[in-house]
Parts: sequence; C-alpha cells; structure tokens
Amino acid sequence: MDIPVVRNILEANEKMADQLRELFSRHAVLVLNLISSPGAGKTSLLERTLADLKNEFSMAVVEGDCQTDNDARRVAATGAKAVQVNTDGGCHLNSSMIQAAIQNFDLAATDILFVENVGNLVCPVEFDCGEDFKIALLSVPEGDDKPEKYPVLFEKSSAMVLNKSDLLPYVDFDVDRAKKFATHLNKDMPIFLTSCRTGEGLEGWYDWLRAAVRAKKSR
Amino acid sequence: MDIPVVRNILEANEKMADQLRELFSRHAVLVLNLISSPGAGKTSLLERTLADLKNEFSMAVVEGDCQTDNDARRVAATGAKAVQVNTDGGCHLNSSMIQAAIQNFDLAATDILFVENVGNLVCPVEFDCGEDFKIALLSVPEGDDKPEKYPVLFEKSSAMVLNKSDLLPYVDFDVDRAKKFATHLNKDMPIFLTSCRTGEGLEGWYDWLRAAVRAKKSR
Repeated sequence: MDIPVVRNILEANEKMADQLRELFSRHAVLVLNLISSPGAGKTSLLERTLADLKNEFSMAVVEGDCQTDNDARRVAATGAKAVQVNTDGGCHLNSSMIQAAIQNFDLAATDILFVENVGNLVCPVEFDCGEDFKIALLSVPEGDDKPEKYPVLFEKSSAMVLNKSDLLPYVDFDVDRAKKFATHLNKDMPIFLTSCRTGEGLEGWYDWLRAAVRAKKSR
Repeated sequence: MDIPVVRNILEANEKMADQLRELFSRHAVLVLNLISSPGAGKTSLLERTLADLKNEFSMAVVEGDCQTDNDARRVAATGAKAVQVNTDGGCHLNSSMIQAAIQNFDLAATDILFVENVGNLVCPVEFDCGEDFKIALLSVPEGDDKPEKYPVLFEKSSAMVLNKSDLLPYVDFDVDRAKKFATHLNKDMPIFLTSCRTGEGLEGWYDWLRAAVRAKKSR
C-alpha cells in the first residue's frame, strides 16, 4: 500500500466515497458495508433481516461478488431492491461501483442500504464505499483466532456479527476468546452471537439497526 | 489489474517466481501453494500431513498471515521446519517473501515445501510463489457455491481439498454440486473430501502427495 499509484487510487476512492456519504446523508439513508470471509453468512443475514424488518424499513442491497448474480437473486426473493455488482475477479467493491449501482434505487424512499462486499477479510477494509459503518461478520467454523490474525477489519468495524452459533457444539470455538480478541482491538464494539439458521440472536442485531436508523434520521 | 504499475508488479513477481522454480527444481523440492478462505483448515491439514508423513518425507513450511506467528508455531510443533511471514495487512504472499523465507531452509535436504498463503480466495491466485502446484481448500461450512462464485482459484489449482466433512450433517452442503462446479472449471482436478478432525479422506491426499514427490524427483 506504499507505492504512489496505489495511494492515488485510494485517495480517489475516498473522495468519491465522501461524495456518496453526503448524498446518502441528504436522503437520511443508513449505509452499512458488510465484510467477511467467503461463506460466513452475509447473504443469509441479509435474507433474514430483509424478511423480518420489511414492515419497518424500506431496504436496498448492493451485492458484490467475483462472479454470478446468485446473491442478488437470493435477497431479491425477500422483496427488497437488489443490484448485483460483478467484480470479474476483483477482490473488493469500491465507491465507483456503488455510485453506478445506486442509480437503480430511489434513495429518497430508502431507509437502509446494505452493501454486501466480496468475501474477503483483507482488501475490502481499505476501500471506503461511502458507508456509515462497516459491519464485520465472523462465522464459528472459521475459528476464534480470526480477529487476532486479520485485525484491521475488526479495528475498523462498528459492530460484529458472530454467526453460525448453531455449529458451536461441533467445532472448537471459544466465544469468549473471539470476543476478547475483537474487543481488545475495538473496545466498545457490540457483538451479536447469531444463527441465521435458527434465528438465535437476531433480535439484538435488529435493535442495533433500529437505533442506527433513528440516529441517522435525527441528524 | 489493468493499470500499468500493477502489471509491472505482477511481471516482476513472475520473473522471480520462475527463478525460484528453477532453484526448487535443481534441488527436486516439490512446492505446493495452499490457498483458501480464512479458517478453511490449511493449518490443520498441514498439522496432520506433517505428523503423518514425517517418516516418509522431509518437509518445510512457509506460513503467511497478516499478523501473529500462531500458525508457524502450530506446524513447528510437529517437528517440521517452519517460517512465518507477516504481511502486515497485505492480502497475499509473493515470490520475494518466499525468497526471503527459504533462506532458513536447507533445500537440498527438503522433499516438500508447503506455502500456506494468507486466507483469501481472490488475491493470492494472482501471485505466483514459484510453486509447482496451487492447492485449493474449500471447507464445508463455506457453502457449495464457492467454486462458482470465486472461479479463478479453482481453475488454476491442481488439486482441491474439500475439508471439514465432519460438519456435513449440520449444514446445507451438496458435495456433488461443489464437485460439479469445480470440475466444470477444471475437469481433471482431483478432489479429496477430508476431515482433519476425524482423519477421513486424508489417505487419498497423501497418495497424491507421494505421487507428486516421485514425479518431481524423477524429472
């Protein structure tokens, strides 16, 4: 990240991200950038959230993947607006991709915009997408050491969803150890232990979302 | 990947990777670059392999991580030589990191060098580390759609380890579907369904390794 052209790319991205953030704020849209390893459950968390809160909020989703529109189809099945961005092998979303994708949405009629990033614990963290908050997802089968080994995401996130709690009986995963690593990096970060399969813990996540929407609208 | 400086970085990396490959071939060292999402079980596979084959082969490991030397300590506990490379937030290993790391090994006395890449399904694929073969790991809880969504790794790998088979009863994962996506991309790729926890399927992987070492030594 210390060669000049990379710095320029990051600076250009940040400039556009700031413009997006202004646009989103003008419309009081809460924007969340969901980041995790592949298969940690970002799409499953969105499917549950979009279905369970559809009578409370108007929500839209930008889905990022290297290939396929599988995830956009999954979340659109809940009735939410969804746009797929294929990076064609690229390892993260950036603000110009978000800029293009949101042309499909009516921001004035949107309460929450979810950005589901490419599955990757490293690169998406460096590329601001104009979000209010980054949300880190970690799934139980990945191991409790991941916040320690991939610290930057956990440092920069405003909440952490610790998903697939239904698999805790079958793997060696110490919830307290994972929480300790994460809060060592980011001491006030709320952590929600969830299972998108059983529904465990989702209410805490929903309450956090409700509070974040209220805060955004009162600004 | 289409801006000139990135192309130059890739070209410089490939040049050094070719030099490393020559060096490894001179010493008949089989070099395998293990790539997967974070937490798919690369280190666990190495722990089993290093312990189970220690009377057959002399093995060394370069461990890549953003932070910590946890993995090098885990594999060194088997008695193998191990060097940790911390990328300090970087998303992949490259050939100059391998070049520096192998100064710690006696290549003439090494049969297999394992390179455990940073946990990431995207970026490590682009950076040749001088290996003979890339090995793709996918773990059952990540979902059977990952070869379709992150195709480049599966296209470029010479074998695939489908790990954590012990979790199949607890998740929605269709082994045939995952295999179909993977072999659609790479039709002759051998796939080993394994559990590093129970030992299931490891013999097939070991037989593949034995054949690869024999082939390397007879070249």
